[in-house]
Amino acid sequence: MVKAARPGESKLVKSLEEVFRRVPVRDGMTFSFHHHFRNGDGVVNEVLATAAKLGIKGLNVALSAVFPVHAPLIDHIKSGVVGTLDTNYMSGPVARAVSAGLCARPVILRTHGGRARAIECGQLKIDVAFIAAPAADDYGNINGVSGPAACGSLGYAFPDAEYADVVVAVTDHLVEYPLAPISIPQTRVDYVAMLDRVGNPKGIISGTTRITDDPMQLRIAETAAKVIQAAGLIKHGFSFQTGAGGASLATAHFARRIMEQTGVTGSFILGGITGHMVEMLERGLFKRIIDVQGFDLEAVRSIATNPNHVEVGSGFYANPFNAGCAVNRLDCVILGATEIDTDFNVNVVTGSDGIIMGGSGGHSDTAAGAKLTIIVASLVRGQWPIIRDRVLTVTTPGDTIDVLVTDSGVAVNPRRKDLAHRLTEAGLPVRDIDELRSVGERIAGRPERTAMGQNIVAVVEYRDGTTIDTVRQCGK
Amino acid sequence: MVKAARPGESKLVKSLEEVFRRVPVRDGMTFSFHHHFRNGDGVVNEVLATAAKLGIKGLNVALSAVFPVHAPLIDHIKSGVVGTLDTNYMSGPVARAVSAGLCARPVILRTHGGRARAIECGQLKIDVAFIAAPAADDYGNINGVSGPAACGSLGYAFPDAEYADVVVAVTDHLVEYPLAPISIPQTRVDYVAMLDRVGNPKGIISGTTRITDDPMQLRIAETAAKVIQAAGLIKHGFSFQTGAGGASLATAHFARRIMEQTGVTGSFILGGITGHMVEMLERGLFKRIIDVQGFDLEAVRSIATNPNHVEVGSGFYANPFNAGCAVNRLDCVILGATEIDTDFNVNVVTGSDGIIMGGSGGHSDTAAGAKLTIIVASLVRGQWPIIRDRVLTVTTPGDTIDVLVTDSGVAVNPRRKDLAHRLTEAGLPVRDIDELRSVGERIAGRPERTAMGQNIVAVVEYRDGTTIDTVRQCGK
Repeated sequence: MVKAARPGESKLVKSLEEVFRRVPVRDGMTFSFHHHFRNGDGVVNEVLATAAKLGIKGLNVALSAVFPVHAPLIDHIKSGVVGTLDTNYMSGPVARAVSAGLCARPVILRTHGGRARAIECGQLKIDVAFIAAPAADDYGNINGVSGPAACGSLGYAFPDAEYADVVVAVTDHLVEYPLAPISIPQTRVDYVAMLDRVGNPKGIISGTTRITDDPMQLRIAETAAKVIQAAGLIKHGFSFQTGAGGASLATAHFARRIMEQTGVTGSFILGGITGHMVEMLERGLFKRIIDVQGFDLEAVRSIATNPNHVEVGSGFYANPFNAGCAVNRLDCVILGATEIDTDFNVNVVTGSDGIIMGGSGGHSDTAAGAKLTIIVASLVRGQWPIIRDRVLTVTTPGDTIDVLVTDSGVAVNPRRKDLAHRLTEAGLPVRDIDELRSVGERIAGRPERTAMGQNIVAVVEYRDGTTIDTVRQCGK
Repeated sequence: MVKAARPGESKLVKSLEEVFRRVPVRDGMTFSFHHHFRNGDGVVNEVLATAAKLGIKGLNVALSAVFPVHAPLIDHIKSGVVGTLDTNYMSGPVARAVSAGLCARPVILRTHGGRARAIECGQLKIDVAFIAAPAADDYGNINGVSGPAACGSLGYAFPDAEYADVVVAVTDHLVEYPLAPISIPQTRVDYVAMLDRVGNPKGIISGTTRITDDPMQLRIAETAAKVIQAAGLIKHGFSFQTGAGGASLATAHFARRIMEQTGVTGSFILGGITGHMVEMLERGLFKRIIDVQGFDLEAVRSIATNPNHVEVGSGFYANPFNAGCAVNRLDCVILGATEIDTDFNVNVVTGSDGIIMGGSGGHSDTAAGAKLTIIVASLVRGQWPIIRDRVLTVTTPGDTIDVLVTDSGVAVNPRRKDLAHRLTEAGLPVRDIDELRSVGERIAGRPERTAMGQNIVAVVEYRDGTTIDTVRQCGK
């Protein structure tokens, strides 16, 4: 958007209320937010409380992920301050309330790359981007690596900053001009607003970013690492990503052991970053980390100091509609699932009870990009078998999944006959996915089809913008 | 521009000819190039030779600055391969030939910020950007700090990379994926082409980037530094830029001395960067360097290693039509002139003989942004008085110039009465600009009005896109 800023003009505003007046904010606008503080976020609730105070109605909230901390959204939706929701992941009270029919219009559930695409293509038009800024100067340069609430990469906010009509940096740490490093530049930021506390970095860490100590999960992870090796990928230049689940992260641990034993140096680690990955970078096992989001404080420390730990936006990470995103260069990704069906379609949106408890995030982006996509899951999750005839909600299409690794064997997508052969040769327990389904059902019983309502509460959008599934009302 | 790149697709092309076929290049397209190699550039001539070989006609060449090394352009224009030229600065054989009527249509002369504006606003639509890349990986990530031809900042290429329909990285130094640091990302680069040598970094250094040892120039520079001090600007947080002329650079030397004597720590140095500025950063006299272009190899070394030496694009540097460019934050800029008139209008496009020998570059951008804009010039340049009734070509409007410092006194723009008072108080030799003009004319004689032809050979565009002057045919 073309603007003009004259010398001497100030971008500093005293309060969010003043921002609203100066924009000016009107009913029905689209506000965007990033989720790097995860469950420690302090900006979304403050901005929406301001909207409520000023009597704004019908906002479209495009928040890249919704966490339990965002529970006040429920009241804002009930009161009409917020009309619609657009996100890549949701868990906690808001997710449950949406499943139960909170919203008059369906929530749009995107992927991380799909959100970047939607913004860059103009499908998701942002009126005002509110960017939680751990550090900012008075002319709007921002980074995530300085200040009391440093969260590391600000990658999910990059498309918002680039394409929103108005960009507001919300910070609790104002530094002298010019800030360095610069993650989001002054050329895109219109206002700098102060808040007592933009976020609690402790909230970045969530249960899903710790490596499991469950022996069954560890066994699955070890098998997954052997699958990568048998596929011939653990060699010079190896690149990989793991999802933020216990078994996924544990796979990195076992893959690392193989790398150390075989003396292999990898190329890059991608995605949400943990201390374990930082350690691999620092020990020279990988040359680079490409970081769209920090998952713990070690990741924050590393990106602030290590030039080989590179911050990228979500478009660079996973947008399918640019000249080439990073997931396209992945050798291997390890992902989780709440359900997988015999066509290898994966659900990470709803639980087996039908209630929303997650979302794609980078799941379907990385699955589409990587040479080898592995789902790690135990055959039974809670009381439910994980392999179904048909998943309740398709998040990631089966033709982008190569292997399922469970505690009772490994299933290979029939599209990858080459791979099945290699894994069998390597002595891995390759079995038909129908057979594994039967094993799971023998343990946990054949599940009833979950009873869902007719009302569509969410539309699951694939990374390219097509609708891949819908979620129907369920729960209270 | 929305694109799609599938996993496994390669961007590597064997030759420029193959790039032309794959784009495919058609007659009349706009090619863009950056000038960070200055007189050592190796890419423009190769690309245009390829166009000639393939029989392409009528290209619009948007090259951010034209140097003597680009002399082959003349033949390409004569043969019709190149139809039009769009640049911010031109010197040497091409400039002389343009003045003599080489082109059928006027050359467009922009400012550095104005070029970024024209690209970002869609006024200068680029079909193919050819980016000389000192280092690149096979997926198109680029930087200017590695490789045998490292040139430092790639800032002038940033808008081209962001807005061109097709982006070609031309490199002689291919590194393993992923490159770090990344100046221009893979998401914007379509092809990576190899060339034996993209440029000679020795060509970066030109005569205008050395500090003068002429006693008169040094005296002017010392006075200019005193003017900055008298204006009250040399205090904590001081920011400044100097043009690439001997007296301009020498002013930095004297300003530094004042800073050291008074214990002042500055904020940032902006613009084209030299080793002298790097030394000031490294000694703690300034906190940051904001670098759109390196002027010598010390600048290249520093930007590669010092996190306080920040690379920015020309939009960040000087585009008047974004949310705030860096020149807006300048306290002071020191600039040169080939002529200045009694309304303080400045010419840096044509010599007093009427022949094109330069261009604005960042001249009018910084003059518009800075709190204090100083022109340093001796009263007589060659055989010509420098102060005129009316400059031959207006490059930078007089209302953005505050002070003229000459060897015979200091003239203050009547718009800045506050400043005239301060300078007089400080004992500086403040004189009326008409009086200084008379002094110059007494020495060098009152010049005849240069005889120019009717044919317009160049249009001088101000940074906001308005036409500020034209250049008429002159010379042979």
